[in-house]
Amino acid sequence: MAVAAENQSQPPQNDLPYVLILKPPAAFSIFGDHFFHSPKFQFLKAFESPLPLSQFLLTHAQSVQAILTSASGSVTADTIRLLPHLGLVVTTSQGINHIDCSECRRRGIAVAGAGTIFSTDCADSAVGLLLDVLRKVSAANRYVKQGLWSSQGNYPLGNKLGGKQVGIVGLGSIGTEVAKRLEAFSCSISYNSRSKKPSVPYTFYPNVVELAVHCDALIICCALTDETHHLIGKEVLSALGKDGVIINIARGPIIDEKELVQCLIKREIRGAGLDVFEHEPDVPVELLALDNVVMSPHNAVCTTESLEELRKTVVGNFEAFFSNEPLLTPVPLDDLPHLSARKQQKVQCFITINMAFLGLQKVDRFSGKGNGSIS
Amino acid sequence: MAVAAENQSQPPQNDLPYVLILKPPAAFSIFGDHFFHSPKFQFLKAFESPLPLSQFLLTHAQSVQAILTSASGSVTADTIRLLPHLGLVVTTSQGINHIDCSECRRRGIAVAGAGTIFSTDCADSAVGLLLDVLRKVSAANRYVKQGLWSSQGNYPLGNKLGGKQVGIVGLGSIGTEVAKRLEAFSCSISYNSRSKKPSVPYTFYPNVVELAVHCDALIICCALTDETHHLIGKEVLSALGKDGVIINIARGPIIDEKELVQCLIKREIRGAGLDVFEHEPDVPVELLALDNVVMSPHNAVCTTESLEELRKTVVGNFEAFFSNEPLLTPVPLDDLPHLSARKQQKVQCFITINMAFLGLQKVDRFSGKGNGSIS
Repeated sequence: MAVAAENQSQPPQNDLPYVLILKPPAAFSIFGDHFFHSPKFQFLKAFESPLPLSQFLLTHAQSVQAILTSASGSVTADTIRLLPHLGLVVTTSQGINHIDCSECRRRGIAVAGAGTIFSTDCADSAVGLLLDVLRKVSAANRYVKQGLWSSQGNYPLGNKLGGKQVGIVGLGSIGTEVAKRLEAFSCSISYNSRSKKPSVPYTFYPNVVELAVHCDALIICCALTDETHHLIGKEVLSALGKDGVIINIARGPIIDEKELVQCLIKREIRGAGLDVFEHEPDVPVELLALDNVVMSPHNAVCTTESLEELRKTVVGNFEAFFSNEPLLTPVPLDDLPHLSARKQQKVQCFITINMAFLGLQKVDRFSGKGNGSIS
Repeated sequence: MAVAAENQSQPPQNDLPYVLILKPPAAFSIFGDHFFHSPKFQFLKAFESPLPLSQFLLTHAQSVQAILTSASGSVTADTIRLLPHLGLVVTTSQGINHIDCSECRRRGIAVAGAGTIFSTDCADSAVGLLLDVLRKVSAANRYVKQGLWSSQGNYPLGNKLGGKQVGIVGLGSIGTEVAKRLEAFSCSISYNSRSKKPSVPYTFYPNVVELAVHCDALIICCALTDETHHLIGKEVLSALGKDGVIINIARGPIIDEKELVQCLIKREIRGAGLDVFEHEPDVPVELLALDNVVMSPHNAVCTTESLEELRKTVVGNFEAFFSNEPLLTPVPLDDLPHLSARKQQKVQCFITINMAFLGLQKVDRFSGKGNGSIS
């Protein structure tokens, strides 16, 4: 299978099948080619070629059997149509709203995602942040590390997690994992979602303000869409009240950050645990000195272990495909609603993991409200 | 019921029954008499009298129907024998090894404790510290608050909690609550205890070194006794290994702190979450700068909510007693082994909560290895 001489990133001349990479996933950029290395396929890197993409694709049209992409790399119908032998698209993200699934379905192209690899890390972070804010873990740690315990005595008591009414905004796979964990702490769970989930035992509130009224803590796990942009504003925060805590491990712009900052400064809510921000990596300076705010740098989503799991899943999907074995994490395209490519940007059925935490904030950041979002 | 004139802290002359306080519980000292106020009884405060205790007790022998004590206030057989109308001892602690239960049983005196009020807070703290160390919550929070995210990029990824092998040293009520929570995070639980617990599904290791060999994290929940003093030393820490994490919410001296400090400095274990220390409130200075160490000032045990629950439980027990109603949290003395007063100091069947966090460190601290301990 010859590759055109004009491709500066000419792959080795061997018989291994080609996996096209239009734009490198974050893990690929950081750890290099070997991160997804396999003896059963090789990568064809469009992003290293000086050719315009369409010309690159035309040149390699007969070679490409599969694509590797991520949440920040769209796979459009136009791209798919240029690749007659394309049989699989693998994305490093949990969501697939950056892939034209209608075209894949029409062509019989399989799609595989990251499954729910990242859901548990996200849920763990949400619970960790909630425990930290309520029990003042980071603040007390700072107090001890500053040597104040022996000189100034005890640190103020924190608040109990058990028995708290916790409202989950967006009961997708992450929200469900959060609920499962908090049940073990004897919390009462309620939720807001686009619709009531019949198989779920938790109290459903169709309105977030109403949910906040009935909760001691709100955990934001929903997708960032036009509908959820600034969903958490003054009204919700007031409804949450002065003993309320808010946790956001979803997307910064779901909260009206200016309103949140004011509420925290004025102690109109008890505290916040924030992994995401409206203009990250910039963080409101007013939050830096507040003991009732715990922040993490958009890393709720991933750990070294889940990144390794991702590697195995991505490689395993390709190896299965090239060996005619069942995929590890196929996305059932027949279950997807028939949506246009444009509307698919807003599909919230799956979770898209923004790999920004791995160093691509400036690339991925705000590539679109419906992109790189968590549902 | 007349009260001797020589009592400087002479109680009001009313008909309310008397509850004797030999040494004020921490909550009493901090919040004052009204913390345990009730219209159904009044306090007789031996600690405010200039009289020697035996003389005070002789003076009021006919008046005292009940005693309020705490983990740091012993109720000895000698005291009990001086009070012919004593019918109830209520302690603010979960444990009762500071009360001569043999004498109570012999005399038919009821004993009530704090029940398991504090177990859940302790367990929450253990999980919070474990999550913090693994996911670098406090360290990443510090990084963001120092403004380093935008200037220096992402913070290193943490480690996943799910799937970790967690070993619990001491599977009492706190250890059991820790296990329940960690099961919801998909951790595998094993434990070390004085004996295998037949009704528990977790793997039992009779030896702590063996437990550590098989674990990614060790959580210390056992009592401090002669047997557990420096139970966690070089051998256990080496067995835990360089990826291992240790959490201590029990008592500082259970860990050989010098060895722990060396292991942490040399990164021979991954990290530590410490609520207790050998010489608290003094903390080893070597730990202050370590990002892999999260510390709290011996406040794992309590929150404002559990303190309020304690208040209701203590008052409720006295009110029930004086109304001939069943006690709220009676301790079944018939189940206790027949131990001498001396040996009772080592009974690990119950959890004694050190109320040091409420400001009495210097009073309570190291009043005895078998006292103020968690099992």
